[in-house]
Amino acid sequence: MIDATSLELTRDGLPPMPPGPPHEERHLTRNATTRDLVIGTADGLTVPFALAAALSGAVAANPLIVSAGVAVVAAGSVAMGLGTYLASRSDAEHYAAERAREEEESRLYPEREKWEVAAILHRYGVRGEVLRQAVESIAADRKKWVDFMMRFELDLSEPDPNRTAASAAATAGAHVAGGLIPLLPYMLFGATAPALTVSCALAGAALLGFGWLKARATGLPPMRGALQSLGTGVAAAVAAYLVASLVGR
Amino acid sequence: MIDATSLELTRDGLPPMPPGPPHEERHLTRNATTRDLVIGTADGLTVPFALAAALSGAVAANPLIVSAGVAVVAAGSVAMGLGTYLASRSDAEHYAAERAREEEESRLYPEREKWEVAAILHRYGVRGEVLRQAVESIAADRKKWVDFMMRFELDLSEPDPNRTAASAAATAGAHVAGGLIPLLPYMLFGATAPALTVSCALAGAALLGFGWLKARATGLPPMRGALQSLGTGVAAAVAAYLVASLVGR
Repeated sequence: MIDATSLELTRDGLPPMPPGPPHEERHLTRNATTRDLVIGTADGLTVPFALAAALSGAVAANPLIVSAGVAVVAAGSVAMGLGTYLASRSDAEHYAAERAREEEESRLYPEREKWEVAAILHRYGVRGEVLRQAVESIAADRKKWVDFMMRFELDLSEPDPNRTAASAAATAGAHVAGGLIPLLPYMLFGATAPALTVSCALAGAALLGFGWLKARATGLPPMRGALQSLGTGVAAAVAAYLVASLVGR
Repeated sequence: MIDATSLELTRDGLPPMPPGPPHEERHLTRNATTRDLVIGTADGLTVPFALAAALSGAVAANPLIVSAGVAVVAAGSVAMGLGTYLASRSDAEHYAAERAREEEESRLYPEREKWEVAAILHRYGVRGEVLRQAVESIAADRKKWVDFMMRFELDLSEPDPNRTAASAAATAGAHVAGGLIPLLPYMLFGATAPALTVSCALAGAALLGFGWLKARATGLPPMRGALQSLGTGVAAAVAAYLVASLVGR
């Protein structure tokens, strides 16, 4: 039972943590760059694999398949890397702008901003005098007050500025690595048929493997993640092959 | 001033909202499908444009450029559509599983779960008897208690099950629409040079236009969004061209 006595006994006013469930590892806080690498590789595989398979069936010889493949890998990596970089930069700016606005509003319209804190706590059942005093405690420190509004009214978490460039570079690099896997056989073999066979085997194994790892990194059941990656890759390749054959005629 | 008297006067315990800033339209709550369409079209443009430009310069004649282009559009749309669908389905399952777990823990370890509520409010400055009573008010209704934990401890919002398929279909469709824009000239012209020129003009205009709309849909300054889309498209095309030329030799 959390009671006022134990609250007062601790230096910062929070009682010691009662025991909880034995397994506490509920959220994967795996290294964020590893996550970017795994997800980027898994995602970067599909389109180059499908393109190469489609061109094998439809029209082209290996050198052209390789040219088209590396062009798509390069374009996809640049689009993905720059996209990630620009998006996280604008997230950071958006956060800063909204924060400045909340801070200004807490000065210009303090009653309104207090009411907004009250409305949030009220939604979860806090009422009356307790609600009033809880709001006053939060509003007593402007930084905590604005923190509360950012997190619970606007649902914005402070972005990590150091992740921007690293995350973009990891995503772009992983796209290159993933995209080259299905193209390698076309670089090594002269004839299209064996290159296609080896490419399908390589891409299939890589889709299963990276799908597995991606699922682990995002908290999905790994086997299902592996099969979903493979299924998506096969569906994309079949669609690409059908459309290219249709247009190629 | 929010005081206990006015709190008690309203039926549900929340006082009337005080006046705030005049401009309240701070978040774009535009139609979500429109958003998917705009973002999908903007993102779907870049890679097919870059691929077609790279192949024009490096090796190929228009029919082959069209085959490769539509293959990439088809593969990208399937990968994007299926990816969106599977991701939002697993988000929904993840939410349901975490919710069941929080609910169970609130039964098995009520003191621990109350402490976790207390720890969150404590972080924002609520202390002592007010903290204790606020926690008890929240924990008095199990649904609100679990709602609070889902939202503020785990940072999970309930996904909308009806958005899954619609969002996936909109994303895939928009990718097809965006991807066909830069390929159209290669379908209409016999020679590569004029097709490339018209494709660059069309893709440039579309990148600016959809970049503008995408920025408006996501709350960025529109002009900057337009220039960023164009810049990303040009960078992707240049990278694809350089890599394809290098490999094509």
